Amino acid sequence: MIRAADIIRKKRDGHSLDPGEIAAMVAGIADRSVADYQWSALLMAILWRGMNAEETAALTDAMLRSGTVVDLSMIPGIKVDKHSTGGVGDKTSLILAPITASLGVPVPMVSGRGLGHTGGTLDKLESIPGFRVDLDLARYREVLADCGLVMIGQTAEIAPADRFLYAMRDATATVESIPLIAASIMSKKLAEGIDGLVLDVKTGGGAFMEQVDDARALARAMCEIGRGLGKSVVALLTRMDQPLGHAVGNAVEVVESIECLRGAGPADLVDLSIELAAEMVVLGGRAGSLDEARGACRQAIANGSALSTFGRLIAAQGGDPRVIDDPTILPRARREVVLEAPRTGFVRSLAARPIGQATMLLGAGRSRMESPVDHAVGVLLHKKEGDAVDRGEPIATILVNDESRLDQAEAAITGSFAIDDRPAPPAPRIVERIAWDS
Amino acid sequence: MIRAADIIRKKRDGHSLDPGEIAAMVAGIADRSVADYQWSALLMAILWRGMNAEETAALTDAMLRSGTVVDLSMIPGIKVDKHSTGGVGDKTSLILAPITASLGVPVPMVSGRGLGHTGGTLDKLESIPGFRVDLDLARYREVLADCGLVMIGQTAEIAPADRFLYAMRDATATVESIPLIAASIMSKKLAEGIDGLVLDVKTGGGAFMEQVDDARALARAMCEIGRGLGKSVVALLTRMDQPLGHAVGNAVEVVESIECLRGAGPADLVDLSIELAAEMVVLGGRAGSLDEARGACRQAIANGSALSTFGRLIAAQGGDPRVIDDPTILPRARREVVLEAPRTGFVRSLAARPIGQATMLLGAGRSRMESPVDHAVGVLLHKKEGDAVDRGEPIATILVNDESRLDQAEAAITGSFAIDDRPAPPAPRIVERIAWDS
Repeated sequence: MIRAADIIRKKRDGHSLDPGEIAAMVAGIADRSVADYQWSALLMAILWRGMNAEETAALTDAMLRSGTVVDLSMIPGIKVDKHSTGGVGDKTSLILAPITASLGVPVPMVSGRGLGHTGGTLDKLESIPGFRVDLDLARYREVLADCGLVMIGQTAEIAPADRFLYAMRDATATVESIPLIAASIMSKKLAEGIDGLVLDVKTGGGAFMEQVDDARALARAMCEIGRGLGKSVVALLTRMDQPLGHAVGNAVEVVESIECLRGAGPADLVDLSIELAAEMVVLGGRAGSLDEARGACRQAIANGSALSTFGRLIAAQGGDPRVIDDPTILPRARREVVLEAPRTGFVRSLAARPIGQATMLLGAGRSRMESPVDHAVGVLLHKKEGDAVDRGEPIATILVNDESRLDQAEAAITGSFAIDDRPAPPAPRIVERIAWDS
Repeated sequence: MIRAADIIRKKRDGHSLDPGEIAAMVAGIADRSVADYQWSALLMAILWRGMNAEETAALTDAMLRSGTVVDLSMIPGIKVDKHSTGGVGDKTSLILAPITASLGVPVPMVSGRGLGHTGGTLDKLESIPGFRVDLDLARYREVLADCGLVMIGQTAEIAPADRFLYAMRDATATVESIPLIAASIMSKKLAEGIDGLVLDVKTGGGAFMEQVDDARALARAMCEIGRGLGKSVVALLTRMDQPLGHAVGNAVEVVESIECLRGAGPADLVDLSIELAAEMVVLGGRAGSLDEARGACRQAIANGSALSTFGRLIAAQGGDPRVIDDPTILPRARREVVLEAPRTGFVRSLAARPIGQATMLLGAGRSRMESPVDHAVGVLLHKKEGDAVDRGEPIATILVNDESRLDQAEAAITGSFAIDDRPAPPAPRIVERIAWDS
């Protein structure tokens, strides 16, 4: 106990902690030699004083070693994953993982569930009838070996210290610390057994990190963790002002992902998915340049190999692979409500956050981790930023089952459209690229 | 749980908490609606961001209301207590409480035990054979009504939230926060049922607050709590560089206190005791000015009324009152070791802290709250700052039973004397007086 108080005091007074001190604090979670209330005091001191790159890497390392570090060395190739900090309509994982895998880069992906106004890959996948995300680690390796990719949820064996600290941070107002956020993300990802990681760090009104400076700091912290722990990490800083693509929900996002893999997806979503996939392909050693990788990714869509890889994955994880050809087997909401444009003009902005919140009100997301999710509901956006619109023209369709909060959802979605006489100049979706050796 | 996290976030972000928010957090200790780890995060945020006078008063109020607030309204008079932040050889409570009580000001005193290098009033009192400090609150009131004073330890009923928070602060490196220190002291004191309080806030090498600015800030915070909660509070900022008086230990300090009450005590100790007692007498409405009160206090010593009041207190609390006339009934150490001056000159300084630490090594103090105390051991200082000394002349006598750490104690005491060719100019013991209306 004395030692924990000394370590807390050191950080409280603004000093750097040694890797051994950080390891002792993390080990103390499992062996109960550090009390919960000591950890929360340290978390507040870290939020106050920060952590340098070496401390953040040491914390990540200790957290990932708190559980199983998956050994994927029996699977040939450079294993690469992608992580997004969370957005609205962000279904890029469902698109880029099959693309990358079809090009020979193994993609072992451990994803999260939606929380707050952002959706989660696991909830989207579970809208496919039969699809299981709760594979054990043995089956995780098998599916990866067979399909070249695998998509599961975090298991109890992976980074248990992160689960403890995440719950503690949530209860003690210590979430908003860049080193803590970076260590949390990276400990889970690096425990998957990956060699490289591409990060999609969102910024803008629909992102958790609204300010670009915060997002950049987080991206850099994660790249520095990669450097500290000897993993290749590249981060793209991308705008999350309007939703990505046209579909926001669960089943509707699977449908849109399949459209992308068919070559018929919306440009913003396809372009970002390809950009991220290309980074993965380069990290995975399957292309010598990003340009070459982009071409290969577009080819994997054009020749159908990405889509068939997705079909194999669905089958391997217990899902009904007919969904690839027949999206009507996905759950569908009982009612559709069409929202019309209140005036003629151009969509100047389309705020992602209220749309995310509206889908949560409809039941597509969850306000608490344990809430159930309605896979069938969501929103289809018929107009996006820059689009011309006539008064009375459909701008969005709400897919709804439980109508108890439909009015609120309608108001939020209508309110998210700002229609003006002139379109806003288009903003680039990718703000910046940060590589771990930059 | 949500509310606690919101309150932590508010303080974390540097905002002031409302009295209701502070009350909810303190109430949450007892009803378990606030988790330990939430409180420790809040403590760290308070240490970081501070608390203003209103917040500190609200915290004190909530803490004192967490347990019994003693009702002494059936006892006539303005009840006044004194609190010291802890020093070496500081036995003023044993002197000023009988003086003040003998002048008609009821003194309900709840004291602490020694910790670290400083002694505690309870340990000193318990060196008197039979003396009980663990009276229940009913007996506490009785003794106060009968003797005009009472001296006990903190009971479980008084400010339980303070005990919880104190233990938590100790384990989480959140002790050194002035509002938290001030609220801890004041909540216990105000729960005793007092109307007024005189604070002796120590500063210097032997004090917990070594820097005078820190001590002043603490004194002001406590005076402001008094103002906020409608209690009269006066603080004296006093030097704790050398020990107070000549005796450091437990039984030896009782002996020296009795000498003071007999009119034969050392000037530094008598003067400070009278200065503090005079403040109490003025707060208690028994003198119109400090000068008048000082005269009355000296008179209470001269006419024996203070000493006989102490005798009555000892008897009422189960102790052997013959100690007043025969100090040999106090426990006495088996061996005395005389330390001699290593050179001729003047005592330039006499560091209180190593002397306090030496008495702890001898067993007179405790390094942990649960350690036992040897009442018989201690140190007698034959020379103080400014005294001339000849080489080989006795400068201190160690009273020892367990000799296992005698060498260390000897070295510490010898090292605490700095002997120089010239005496240092005498420093005033009282640095500053802070009244709650100042």
